[in-house]
Amino acid sequence: MEETVGFLYHQVAERLEQMIGKGILSTGDKLPSVRVLSEEQGISMSTAFKAYGELEMKGLVEARPKSGYYVRFTPQELPQAPFAERRLPPKDISVGEMIREVYRNLSAEGIVRLSVAAPAPEHLPEAKLNKSMMEALREDAHSCIRYGDIQGNARLRQQLARLAFNWGGSAAPEDIVTTQGCMEALSFCLQALTRPGDTVAIEAPGYFGVSMVLNSLGLKVLEVPVHPETGIDLDYLENALGRTAVAACLFVPNFNNPTGACLPDERKERLVRMLARRNIPLIEDDIYGELYFGKSRPLACKHFDEKGLVLYCSSFSKMLAPGYRVGWCLPGRFREQVLMQKLAHTVTSAAPTHAAVARFLEAGRFGLHMRRLRKALHTQCLRYTQAICHHFPDNIRITRPQGGFTLWLELPPEVNAYALYRRAIRHNISIAPGQMFSADGRFSNYIRLSYGAPFSEEIEGSLEILGRLVGGGGEYGGDG
Amino acid sequence: MEETVGFLYHQVAERLEQMIGKGILSTGDKLPSVRVLSEEQGISMSTAFKAYGELEMKGLVEARPKSGYYVRFTPQELPQAPFAERRLPPKDISVGEMIREVYRNLSAEGIVRLSVAAPAPEHLPEAKLNKSMMEALREDAHSCIRYGDIQGNARLRQQLARLAFNWGGSAAPEDIVTTQGCMEALSFCLQALTRPGDTVAIEAPGYFGVSMVLNSLGLKVLEVPVHPETGIDLDYLENALGRTAVAACLFVPNFNNPTGACLPDERKERLVRMLARRNIPLIEDDIYGELYFGKSRPLACKHFDEKGLVLYCSSFSKMLAPGYRVGWCLPGRFREQVLMQKLAHTVTSAAPTHAAVARFLEAGRFGLHMRRLRKALHTQCLRYTQAICHHFPDNIRITRPQGGFTLWLELPPEVNAYALYRRAIRHNISIAPGQMFSADGRFSNYIRLSYGAPFSEEIEGSLEILGRLVGGGGEYGGDG
Repeated sequence: MEETVGFLYHQVAERLEQMIGKGILSTGDKLPSVRVLSEEQGISMSTAFKAYGELEMKGLVEARPKSGYYVRFTPQELPQAPFAERRLPPKDISVGEMIREVYRNLSAEGIVRLSVAAPAPEHLPEAKLNKSMMEALREDAHSCIRYGDIQGNARLRQQLARLAFNWGGSAAPEDIVTTQGCMEALSFCLQALTRPGDTVAIEAPGYFGVSMVLNSLGLKVLEVPVHPETGIDLDYLENALGRTAVAACLFVPNFNNPTGACLPDERKERLVRMLARRNIPLIEDDIYGELYFGKSRPLACKHFDEKGLVLYCSSFSKMLAPGYRVGWCLPGRFREQVLMQKLAHTVTSAAPTHAAVARFLEAGRFGLHMRRLRKALHTQCLRYTQAICHHFPDNIRITRPQGGFTLWLELPPEVNAYALYRRAIRHNISIAPGQMFSADGRFSNYIRLSYGAPFSEEIEGSLEILGRLVGGGGEYGGDG
Repeated sequence: MEETVGFLYHQVAERLEQMIGKGILSTGDKLPSVRVLSEEQGISMSTAFKAYGELEMKGLVEARPKSGYYVRFTPQELPQAPFAERRLPPKDISVGEMIREVYRNLSAEGIVRLSVAAPAPEHLPEAKLNKSMMEALREDAHSCIRYGDIQGNARLRQQLARLAFNWGGSAAPEDIVTTQGCMEALSFCLQALTRPGDTVAIEAPGYFGVSMVLNSLGLKVLEVPVHPETGIDLDYLENALGRTAVAACLFVPNFNNPTGACLPDERKERLVRMLARRNIPLIEDDIYGELYFGKSRPLACKHFDEKGLVLYCSSFSKMLAPGYRVGWCLPGRFREQVLMQKLAHTVTSAAPTHAAVARFLEAGRFGLHMRRLRKALHTQCLRYTQAICHHFPDNIRITRPQGGFTLWLELPPEVNAYALYRRAIRHNISIAPGQMFSADGRFSNYIRLSYGAPFSEEIEGSLEILGRLVGGGGEYGGDG
């Protein structure tokens, strides 16, 4: 019953949100009173109240004392989405060194970690995961301490096969190889598919970890532009494939990091067919796929895979427990090659963490947790965006992510994002400079901000400082 | 419109049916409610309802009043088909395939695992380690769930720095990088030091995992003979270095696997100086170093390292908890390069297992445990050796290990160790054929037997069967 009521208030809130989104209701508009809303919609007063509460949480409406509810914010106020990229001249630091520096400064105390694309601990089911771990240690003590199955914990693979249903997949436990996070899965797939000197197509802007592993493996890079709304530019890719021999593609079709772009499902099909015609394997990094803000989860490219050419990779690092390092891979026809890489580089995965996640999933705790996490992230996305619009200069552009953790900001061309990083860290604010998101340090006037932590006064304060630094505010000092 | 809906519900039903068919969903499992299914799949409630209706028609699911849908039948309930592996050993099996086969057969029930060079769970401090894990989860909950420090858990590195005292080392926590077991440490060191096509000097016979990782990285191999008593043949190495350009050496100076040979300390000094003169880095795998049977722990080569050219690697897999995957590395002057590899391939280590081991060491539980383990292994080494002498033909040779887990047996020249493996596994006995311990499948009349499990009647019975198989005993059948 409570469920049904919950559903109702959410429906009402959603309809109001759509009206705000379409500009039917504008900033400052007075909304119907709780009583009027309840009468008009044929719902109880408490349901109407909850509907307004949800919109308030998202920062879309505000309650004014003794006056009622008003629209507080409409997306029309958002600056444009970024699309342009500008090459900037020389850099005094390599991209790799920049990444190391940003990571190194993260471990210090008191840092506001706007650079970490992961959920804050507040959003993670710590107590329940601990419980799952303790059950595993108690009931499966021997299997937790000894070497595990090379392919991965059997109970975990069983659960992962079920999870495949969400993205339109059908997988059996024996199709799955577990790994130490998604990064290890990507690394094994690349090593299974390529030899040094081969070219791999990746996204630009794209996750810097991918450039690092390609570099470490001596692979060449073909960068394919990503549009902040519609994802990978397939026409560009198709042209490039005609000119360049590509050993594999490595893409994040659902909620690209940093832009949050999602490749529409029909374009995923086109991508998979385009590559299948040329027999080019696709390594699909779907680590953000479950973090959608829309009505339903986007499909994975693997859904369209008929030839076993898509190697699906993901992990629980962004959903459940970054520190557990529990990832997995469905390598399609390359399963034996990927297993050989795992055997050669790490032998088996850590048994206790993998057993704990298996039990957490078995207990049916995952679905509810994910619904909460998605809702929280969507809310935070909106709150952060609003604060940025408020505190940053007008001439910036900002993405509208459809899922994931990150906002991608285009700053005025004269801003050097790395210099901005250096200034921000002196205020204990860590951001990810745009240079990190391409192999050659482009995007030098872009930054990535993560909204993984709950919005708070501290966050608002940090965004305010950042906004002034971007605007060149003297009181925060230069880069001296 | 009706067409589309029909198509959709049928698709959803079909995918669920596949999951039931493959055993991903089992009899009695609760299925998502109609509402949750509709949300997750982005379909209407009525479509979700129809999908369940179709499965109900087929007798695959049932609706239980006021409770929801449950799986009613899975094909796995049928009796299993008899399992029998009757292939003849192919003449041309690769060393890699052989290793995969030996590992694959390990996960079956009821196997006597003479092929696993690790302590049996009986020797491991399961309860105390579980206690350390629970303390870590309770007291450091946030650090266990979030991304850890890239270089590794600070408390663990503090303890590892202390442990270095045992092998004559002096290390600070900041000199140490933690890894997922020793194998990952070796892999990172190799990737930090070499490029594909480079040559690396290794031991023959030597641990097969090393050949696998070199092969995966496209590295060439220079094999240096190991004498079962005195270890690596330094004269051979010195000669070879005069002829061949070597990018790095990777040796197990303390208790080589499989022979158990230990390079005497004064020869370690000669080795380190010989390589330092030529500026060749030495990757030292010291995973067995603490498992000595003599009066004191042998030194590590790292003890003699003056130029930062020795990259010391080890793990707790053979001492404390194989399944925890807690290893580490002291990369000397190559620390930044090794850290970059870690960042590129795995980002951070699993936080809970590393925190648990740190606490286990802090509690002072390690010393006593190791004294017991060394004593048990020494006893087992002797008991196994005696039983082998009793049950095997007279014309075999056997090593006298000074530490570690393994005996290395030379069998009569007409014996093919891989064929012997195939015969033994039919008696549920797993051994490691000698072919696995060189890059080109030499040592075909050798086997490695591990004495990691307590001596017992079952072990004695297995060694008796093995002895007869080696002797060609007719009653155990041929290879037909």
